[in-house]
Amino acid sequence: MSGRQRHEPTIEEFVEGIKRGERHLLSRAITLVESSRPEHERLAHQILDRCIGSGRSSIRVGVTGAPGAGKSTFIEALGLHLASVGKKVAVLAIDPSSSRSKGSILGDKSRMEKLAARPEAFIRPTPSSGYLGGTSPRTHETILLCEAAGYEIIIVETVGVGQSEIVVNSMVDFILLLMLPGSGDELQGIKRGIMEIADAIAINKADGDRQKIAEVSKGDFESALRLLPEKHPGWERKVLLTSALESAGIHEVWQNIEAFASAMHESGEWAAQRREQLRHLLHAIAEDRLKREFYNTPPVKAATQRIEQQVLSGKLSPFTGALELLEAFREK
Amino acid sequence: MSGRQRHEPTIEEFVEGIKRGERHLLSRAITLVESSRPEHERLAHQILDRCIGSGRSSIRVGVTGAPGAGKSTFIEALGLHLASVGKKVAVLAIDPSSSRSKGSILGDKSRMEKLAARPEAFIRPTPSSGYLGGTSPRTHETILLCEAAGYEIIIVETVGVGQSEIVVNSMVDFILLLMLPGSGDELQGIKRGIMEIADAIAINKADGDRQKIAEVSKGDFESALRLLPEKHPGWERKVLLTSALESAGIHEVWQNIEAFASAMHESGEWAAQRREQLRHLLHAIAEDRLKREFYNTPPVKAATQRIEQQVLSGKLSPFTGALELLEAFREK
Repeated sequence: MSGRQRHEPTIEEFVEGIKRGERHLLSRAITLVESSRPEHERLAHQILDRCIGSGRSSIRVGVTGAPGAGKSTFIEALGLHLASVGKKVAVLAIDPSSSRSKGSILGDKSRMEKLAARPEAFIRPTPSSGYLGGTSPRTHETILLCEAAGYEIIIVETVGVGQSEIVVNSMVDFILLLMLPGSGDELQGIKRGIMEIADAIAINKADGDRQKIAEVSKGDFESALRLLPEKHPGWERKVLLTSALESAGIHEVWQNIEAFASAMHESGEWAAQRREQLRHLLHAIAEDRLKREFYNTPPVKAATQRIEQQVLSGKLSPFTGALELLEAFREK
Repeated sequence: MSGRQRHEPTIEEFVEGIKRGERHLLSRAITLVESSRPEHERLAHQILDRCIGSGRSSIRVGVTGAPGAGKSTFIEALGLHLASVGKKVAVLAIDPSSSRSKGSILGDKSRMEKLAARPEAFIRPTPSSGYLGGTSPRTHETILLCEAAGYEIIIVETVGVGQSEIVVNSMVDFILLLMLPGSGDELQGIKRGIMEIADAIAINKADGDRQKIAEVSKGDFESALRLLPEKHPGWERKVLLTSALESAGIHEVWQNIEAFASAMHESGEWAAQRREQLRHLLHAIAEDRLKREFYNTPPVKAATQRIEQQVLSGKLSPFTGALELLEAFREK
């Protein structure tokens, strides 16, 4: 932010600017979405209210995998491929970062430099607030803004083999799981949860010496997938070999995503999944606001410190303490 | 559960039985904690209300690491070591399992068989409900029950290199991060978040051919730790080499945990961290109940379906829809 006062655009200016694809207005709107200030949230939601009916369609792709699987290199290769065929691509990195230092590791090094230099691409790290559920509605809102700005493919990066994938599953159309060659023999250790939400698996870094091992892993994962329940009826999950380094297999991944989109549009599942995700967003926003209202209610505010002290000193159990907090809320 | 009607113990019987260390009553109380039925929750909280002041102390250890790092074999080796010196050990496995099939992978194979056979040990898988925040208060409550039952060391297993560690950090005293030999060169990909919440790192599977690589990784992690901010002032995080398979290094890990406990007790940080965790639990329970109350309020119940339909059909944005839900809640 520069030192001098910036003109604050009106809602109209935001909406029109975003729809024209003006990147700085899109960026500023995302900053409003990420803000924890109530007046920013109100403004963000007024902008979103008018962006959501833009009628623009997109394909939202979640890319997930363990640390070291080469997610950002892969996403850059995919993004460059899409940009080269004239597609507008937005990349959102869900960054669990550090909940202690509040720092974003994405800030530590510049990533996806080549992709960032392309006019067709928009890259945005979305730092999490350390609050588990918090990532969800905000990232979803950012996706909606990017869609209104005309980005045709929105790639959401997510880290870890844990629970963040369940969150990302509630906002993307297609989930690609990146694995390393040789990781097939760890299949026992891999959570079924993550395998089950994948719409395709890419064995990444399938280059050089690892080519042979990658082939073996491909077979292992194919067998494993056959044992899992279907995610989308009629969609057969493929295991692909990719090398982001050598840009190999990237086109095939994209073809697979396009085939998925066609199949899902045809069966009506595409729209059904999007509707389910909107329902999820509705409740996530309502619950966020409810919680804030709860803690800002004067009797709750007044009681919180006293109840906390009684709980911390062992005079009151947290279970009874919680009931008293709710009692205070009912008083208002 | 058997076919015939079981006698439902009274709260008194539950509390006294748990305090005497009766495993079947402890198990049944944990089942109440995990239940989603309001009457079970009420009963669980009444039991907990009277268990929390048991005056028994414990060391709560979180063990985390990526899939394949050998967490359950390690935990079994540590548990057997502790049992052999006469300590009572409870093991709780946080299992993100499958959010789609609702199945628990722990059920797929029998784990920790040797430890399970020891009278000093109590092993309990804690299936998550698929709801991100949900694991938190319930697992914490289970820890409190195990503590009241006289378990001196409570080991909480957590999977993934994602966000579940942030949750576990809010309920244990000490966090051990398990890594594989050779994973040091993936340090760039490892989230700082997980490194920062670790109180020690164990390079596991440091046996056979991997011994040499493990030594190198040890150095890598030691350097990485030096660059991180302190978690607890005055506690120097160590990197240890372990082989759960050969039961090597397990005693050293336990010594490190005991040294940590002494240092933290001395500085007063032990009690401070426990108090902070109780505060966290208080709010987690209150927020859980608040949410349930919200959706059960008649005007919200009545409005939900209508608002959902308007949102899903595109007539209403989820942002305005959420405001209307809160409006309905205020009407009650």
